[in-house]
Amino acid sequence: MTDRELGDRRSLAKAITLVESTRPADREESAELLSRLLPLTGGAIRVGISGPPGVGKSTLLEVLGLRLLDAGHRVAVLAVDPTSPRSGGSILGDKTRMADLARHPGAYVRPSPSGGDLGGVTRRTNEVVLLCEAAGYDVVLIETVGVGQSEVAVADLVDTFVLLVAAGAGDELQGVKRGIMELADVVAVTKADGELAAAARRAEADHRHAVHFLRQRHPAWAPAVLSTSAATGEGIAELWQAVVAHREALGADLDRLRADQRERWLDREVREAALEVLLAQDGLADAVDELRAAVRAGTVVPSAAGPRLRNALE
Amino acid sequence: MTDRELGDRRSLAKAITLVESTRPADREESAELLSRLLPLTGGAIRVGISGPPGVGKSTLLEVLGLRLLDAGHRVAVLAVDPTSPRSGGSILGDKTRMADLARHPGAYVRPSPSGGDLGGVTRRTNEVVLLCEAAGYDVVLIETVGVGQSEVAVADLVDTFVLLVAAGAGDELQGVKRGIMELADVVAVTKADGELAAAARRAEADHRHAVHFLRQRHPAWAPAVLSTSAATGEGIAELWQAVVAHREALGADLDRLRADQRERWLDREVREAALEVLLAQDGLADAVDELRAAVRAGTVVPSAAGPRLRNALE
Repeated sequence: MTDRELGDRRSLAKAITLVESTRPADREESAELLSRLLPLTGGAIRVGISGPPGVGKSTLLEVLGLRLLDAGHRVAVLAVDPTSPRSGGSILGDKTRMADLARHPGAYVRPSPSGGDLGGVTRRTNEVVLLCEAAGYDVVLIETVGVGQSEVAVADLVDTFVLLVAAGAGDELQGVKRGIMELADVVAVTKADGELAAAARRAEADHRHAVHFLRQRHPAWAPAVLSTSAATGEGIAELWQAVVAHREALGADLDRLRADQRERWLDREVREAALEVLLAQDGLADAVDELRAAVRAGTVVPSAAGPRLRNALE
Repeated sequence: MTDRELGDRRSLAKAITLVESTRPADREESAELLSRLLPLTGGAIRVGISGPPGVGKSTLLEVLGLRLLDAGHRVAVLAVDPTSPRSGGSILGDKTRMADLARHPGAYVRPSPSGGDLGGVTRRTNEVVLLCEAAGYDVVLIETVGVGQSEVAVADLVDTFVLLVAAGAGDELQGVKRGIMELADVVAVTKADGELAAAARRAEADHRHAVHFLRQRHPAWAPAVLSTSAATGEGIAELWQAVVAHREALGADLDRLRADQRERWLDREVREAALEVLLAQDGLADAVDELRAAVRAGTVVPSAAGPRLRNALE
């Protein structure tokens, strides 16, 4: 089923560079490429993996990824990094974090695309998932760092959303927020080994209790809660079993879930296209620049933008 | 300085209903109203207050609000509630939570607007802030519940962002995430009284330690961390002093901060206007509907939307 054009990692990387490009000509070409590859897509298990910095995300991803490779899967790992102008540099950009996985011929590890707003990054990640599927990867893991916005975005890219939480109780900064917990299909406590083993069991019990009080997203699935250790390997197989069980529980609803995701993706594309079309009209880019200066100066209220732009078009 | 049209709470409420309306005629009218009122705006101290459910947000808001009223301020309290189709009903809609404040003639308490996406809600809240200022309120408190996206949105509406955190350590669900901590200008531990007093001091120390490691958003301001009790009133004056000190530390940068906020608001308005303009073109709404059906069916990739819509316009 693999597309010949994407038969090796180098050509996949080239295709990804194309879809991540913001040049208009490249965007046309990437839309064509994706349209052509569409029949080859959809075959992967798409899994989102999120958790706060320090929870042990890359260590767990590497152990999980190597196991899946051993079991005959082809595994792609993508990153969505909500790098903002405020928080500065990329957190997930470092490919060397998963060195063993990245070296394996059956794996493809793609660091986070740099630049652009989160909306743009997730639109492109949607496309990269399709490319990976067309290239024959049957497991796509999408990791993100836990800062609220990006989890919501990643949950909208995947079939199953796994939330990693730390064993160390009492550390408020490691805490998980209710809003993010609500997104989780599987909650995995990490580092359940050695000195932290007992704390991990307590964290597992706490989270099992907590998810009990959350709105259930799917009638056939109550979030699974389990403990894992990347060091001992304990719980890693169970984590993957939970992912597979979740997909099975979704049944025919998986198609609907994906159709809903595609529709929201379309809405983002339409909005982006609308802005481009508007700014391409004669004089409109200048009108927006003038508005921008006046709004910054405080002489025009942003709400006036709609009426003014509509008038400028008449 | 108060605009005559907004001289009493009923006319303010009417104006707010107008700017929250999505009817095209109302939107034109509200843009006109806001343009007229613009010279009367900008005079309030705008403060965002966020924290997880159960942290004691409304109790603290009520005590703080009543104190500010006693000190001669006029206080407006607005809510931004990230009500999603997923999480169901509004969390902050209940005006009766702040009954004493809502009854006070110098206060105006506005529950969260219902419906609409978070982007739409924050655009309208921007406008409501201006209306409150034109109506003579010199303190505008904007509360939101902590689920990641809404804090980022509210931080973009205000001069000073206050994060409330719970005294009870060890409760992971009460935890605060790094990404949200980074937004905070002031961190206030709540319920620092009675049995929780000692825990509150510990939480205060923990958070003081934690903010130390965060990127400082402004060279002249390191986030203030303090303990408060709505029950005893302890720390409430200090909380407000910290808000005022933060504004003073900003100095001339306050104007730039607000100009940046207005510019981002303009960008959202321009995007919204672009979508409206696009869909108003002959046949375009139908073209989008067709695309939607094809994307749901999986026969067209969302990335094709841009090229297709541009072709349809040629």
